[in-house]
Amino acid sequence: MQAEILAIGDEVLAGMVVNSNASFISQKLSQIGWDISRHTTLPDDLNAIYEGLKEALGRSTVVLVTGGLGSTHDDVTRNAAAKLFNSGFHYDSEVAADLTKRFGDKLPSLKDQATVPSKAKIVLNAVGTAPGFIFTSEEKKLILMPGIPYEMKPMLENQVIPYLKEAFPLEEKYAEHFHFCLLNESTVDPMLRELSVVYPKVKIGIYPAYGGVTVSMTAPSKDLINPLKDRLLSRFSTYLYPSASGKIEEAVHDLMRERKKTLAFAESCTGGMIAEKITSLSGASDYFLGSIVAYSNSLKNHLLSVSENTLKQYGAVSAETAAEMLSGLFKATKADYGIAVTGIAGPTGGTPEKPVGTVWAAIGERDRAPDIALLKGKGSRQMIIQSTSNRLLGGLWRKIVHHERFVP
Amino acid sequence: MQAEILAIGDEVLAGMVVNSNASFISQKLSQIGWDISRHTTLPDDLNAIYEGLKEALGRSTVVLVTGGLGSTHDDVTRNAAAKLFNSGFHYDSEVAADLTKRFGDKLPSLKDQATVPSKAKIVLNAVGTAPGFIFTSEEKKLILMPGIPYEMKPMLENQVIPYLKEAFPLEEKYAEHFHFCLLNESTVDPMLRELSVVYPKVKIGIYPAYGGVTVSMTAPSKDLINPLKDRLLSRFSTYLYPSASGKIEEAVHDLMRERKKTLAFAESCTGGMIAEKITSLSGASDYFLGSIVAYSNSLKNHLLSVSENTLKQYGAVSAETAAEMLSGLFKATKADYGIAVTGIAGPTGGTPEKPVGTVWAAIGERDRAPDIALLKGKGSRQMIIQSTSNRLLGGLWRKIVHHERFVP
Repeated sequence: MQAEILAIGDEVLAGMVVNSNASFISQKLSQIGWDISRHTTLPDDLNAIYEGLKEALGRSTVVLVTGGLGSTHDDVTRNAAAKLFNSGFHYDSEVAADLTKRFGDKLPSLKDQATVPSKAKIVLNAVGTAPGFIFTSEEKKLILMPGIPYEMKPMLENQVIPYLKEAFPLEEKYAEHFHFCLLNESTVDPMLRELSVVYPKVKIGIYPAYGGVTVSMTAPSKDLINPLKDRLLSRFSTYLYPSASGKIEEAVHDLMRERKKTLAFAESCTGGMIAEKITSLSGASDYFLGSIVAYSNSLKNHLLSVSENTLKQYGAVSAETAAEMLSGLFKATKADYGIAVTGIAGPTGGTPEKPVGTVWAAIGERDRAPDIALLKGKGSRQMIIQSTSNRLLGGLWRKIVHHERFVP
Repeated sequence: MQAEILAIGDEVLAGMVVNSNASFISQKLSQIGWDISRHTTLPDDLNAIYEGLKEALGRSTVVLVTGGLGSTHDDVTRNAAAKLFNSGFHYDSEVAADLTKRFGDKLPSLKDQATVPSKAKIVLNAVGTAPGFIFTSEEKKLILMPGIPYEMKPMLENQVIPYLKEAFPLEEKYAEHFHFCLLNESTVDPMLRELSVVYPKVKIGIYPAYGGVTVSMTAPSKDLINPLKDRLLSRFSTYLYPSASGKIEEAVHDLMRERKKTLAFAESCTGGMIAEKITSLSGASDYFLGSIVAYSNSLKNHLLSVSENTLKQYGAVSAETAAEMLSGLFKATKADYGIAVTGIAGPTGGTPEKPVGTVWAAIGERDRAPDIALLKGKGSRQMIIQSTSNRLLGGLWRKIVHHERFVP
């Protein structure tokens, strides 16, 4: 069944607020088997909203709207919907009682918020003051919810979704996502093209990220996905990492916590980004000791014990320096696992022998021989730093879990 | 003039990715005088995109599209646009030469990305592999850009916006942006509201960022802006930093290079983000020595010489620890300036005495008494880390340039 999502708000169209509501609603509705065919954002304008609602209901069975339900003069979503459904308004004692119970009888917007379209089913707001509404016309539903995410989310999850499940008993669709580290789009795509011909009932998506790629499969049942999944994993299983967010740092984070191991980095060209990724996750202090961001040669020497001779003879960007950075990291910290990386992120600093994108890295476990590899970064400075960070985290995860040598 | 923005991508409609591109484009276009009337997201489906483009061009003078320009089988935006404009395709040697120059002649998608719609003007992608396109029909423009933000943003700012300015010389509006470190919306907004009454011909925008705020003023002439600007700066001039990108790290970067000083950090709760911000800028190696990301107490002790007694008596999140981290940083490196920071980014780890958001920082110059301050971060873990990083860079910049004590 097809649904679409509308957001109402000048602040979204002015770029002051990102429309994260649409993503949230899409996720939740996809999970119960709906296809989301469109997201639209419209201004706080009665006619634009009226026309937008009419068009959307012409295309889709269910239209979910967020925003424009408050009590200020530019909140006109209720009015546009009431006009479309030829509905009058009445003062609703149930809404008034609910608002008075939660906010007292001095609430300035009480009268406004309790005056509701008579043809709509009311959805009480458990958090804020603006109730939601469900309009029905033949087989179609128009659902209005507040725009504030912490009001909309519980209304969607606790009231709207159970309502939709009852009104439209769908077979739930089965969707699965596969996150692969170290692979890129062009490695996976040829196989997916073949598979999509052999298994036309499965919808396949491919989402490249820097230093990895995500593949999605959607089908009416798990049985339809399984043979395709088996084919894909028969080739790439050691690259597949588990992560709810899809981010490789989450897989590393979970692995370190599960195995009760500690981790540290010695970063040069990534400039702290690998540490920043790991510490973006709550609970990183359980296992993450820190990162020595040794951007200058003097810090590589003083903090990581890279010998002056190595820096002079092989240069800061070399296999030898990466190896000494890693052994220096294990000396400077008690980490069980470590990553050391040094390279030229550009756009300046490249030479014919070591062009921009030349990155040497060492990945290893304490007291074991490390894997040392040359990565060839492509694109802008930001792309090189991002993809290097993700590939190194992916390489470490794969080495620990699958005992695979780091080949970038 | 009216523009609308389309995003193409199943991953957006599935809720896997938030459409932040639309916000970014809206901001930039608003700043040059365009009204954004609608945002739409459509699936990776040739017919849906074709119909969506047609509708949008029926409504608006300019339609900007992001996504679906890659070389995988579900990237069909080019095809939908070519169909709408009755355009064939040709292999473009200029695009091929550009890709070969940046990615080598082994790029798997070379042939695909260099095969472009013949009726479109080509917009080279300075970062990634997918070029952008501009189609023209009578007075209308359809502009296709890549969906990856790192690629889309420079294309929009450096190529599309100058193109639009030339193609649609809107009544020459004068716009100026003012970036303030350390201030927030609620500090600046009351003054702006007053000023907007006194100077109604100037359109004022306020764009809060984590740990800073940007104010825009737009008017038919510079003369109209000047008195308002003077009023604003009479109060906030020491917070105003110069930065083409609007980012505080750019102001610090330029300052360090200009004064030929060196810089290093000792980061705990920011986890490498301050270093990552600085090293995102090409040329950082001129002055940036590195960052000791001492996430664990053991690294604070071993690498930054924070005494075990201090950690025990005052805790890792304390003025005393921040001060010792900074003096330890000056011992471990030869940096002229340094920032040390330790705090609780949450959501776990808070206590009644030190709730989530408690951050102690020390900012200083070698051999001078540092400024030590308590920052109170608000919001999510990501918000606390981001705003702390920006406020510390802002505090350092303001201290050096204006000799103002760091008050967060």
